[in-house]
Amino acid sequence: MAHYHHILIAADFSENNEQVLEQAAMLAREHNAQLSICHIVEDYPLTDFAYEPMISIDSEMREMLLESGKKQIAALADKLNIAEAQQWVEFGNPRHDIVKIANEHQVDLIVLGSHGRHGWKLLLGSTANAVLHHSECDVLAIRLKKV
Amino acid sequence: MAHYHHILIAADFSENNEQVLEQAAMLAREHNAQLSICHIVEDYPLTDFAYEPMISIDSEMREMLLESGKKQIAALADKLNIAEAQQWVEFGNPRHDIVKIANEHQVDLIVLGSHGRHGWKLLLGSTANAVLHHSECDVLAIRLKKV
Repeated sequence: MAHYHHILIAADFSENNEQVLEQAAMLAREHNAQLSICHIVEDYPLTDFAYEPMISIDSEMREMLLESGKKQIAALADKLNIAEAQQWVEFGNPRHDIVKIANEHQVDLIVLGSHGRHGWKLLLGSTANAVLHHSECDVLAIRLKKV
Repeated sequence: MAHYHHILIAADFSENNEQVLEQAAMLAREHNAQLSICHIVEDYPLTDFAYEPMISIDSEMREMLLESGKKQIAALADKLNIAEAQQWVEFGNPRHDIVKIANEHQVDLIVLGSHGRHGWKLLLGSTANAVLHHSECDVLAIRLKKV
């Protein structure tokens, strides 16, 4: 029987993030599993349609974005009683780094929000899709409402 | 708190299907949820690399494939005590019809197996990916081992 031992929330700061947090917390309780949370601050947060960076990120801005991400994650983690040692906020590429963190910490279930994708967004894919394809563990995609 | 009321297994007949069945059954028990199972027999089961049908399917072959699918699903459903009324085997396109069945029956969680995809298979996407993007409910993708 496959019980989950370590559940990782891959958090973004969507409007309906609560759904993801609640579901992950419930599963962690049911499975008596370790609950962790990660957030990847994207290297190029501002891009134009052609996916060219519109601004270059210097080290100061990088630090600022990382700090802001850490504060937001800490606030979410606090609600769920996730210790600081189980919070990982990194600068990088969400598609790769969520899976990397999951592998490094023997996560067996990643929980993330899934936005509906249509038209060109579907073609370009999404973080949820990339994580689904590359993760070595199970993935629970929570359909975010009203997005 | 988001409890699942109706869990749908989207079954294929992969070697490691057991993982999907076990996980779905466990979740159904934990959530005291209705458990259902579906399988979509693909319209063009035999295609060449360019995705052209290599054989055309006549009505007799269609019937044969459908019957075979129903028998296999019935065998799986039997192990999980899923009544016949909760088994849906259809001829069609898995990417669309799994989501359609889920919507029609107020499913709030789809459980399916996820095969790792690399190279051109990643570009072409997969059923799990398409379901993830188009479903109106949550999706749990079980990473199938040794595929």
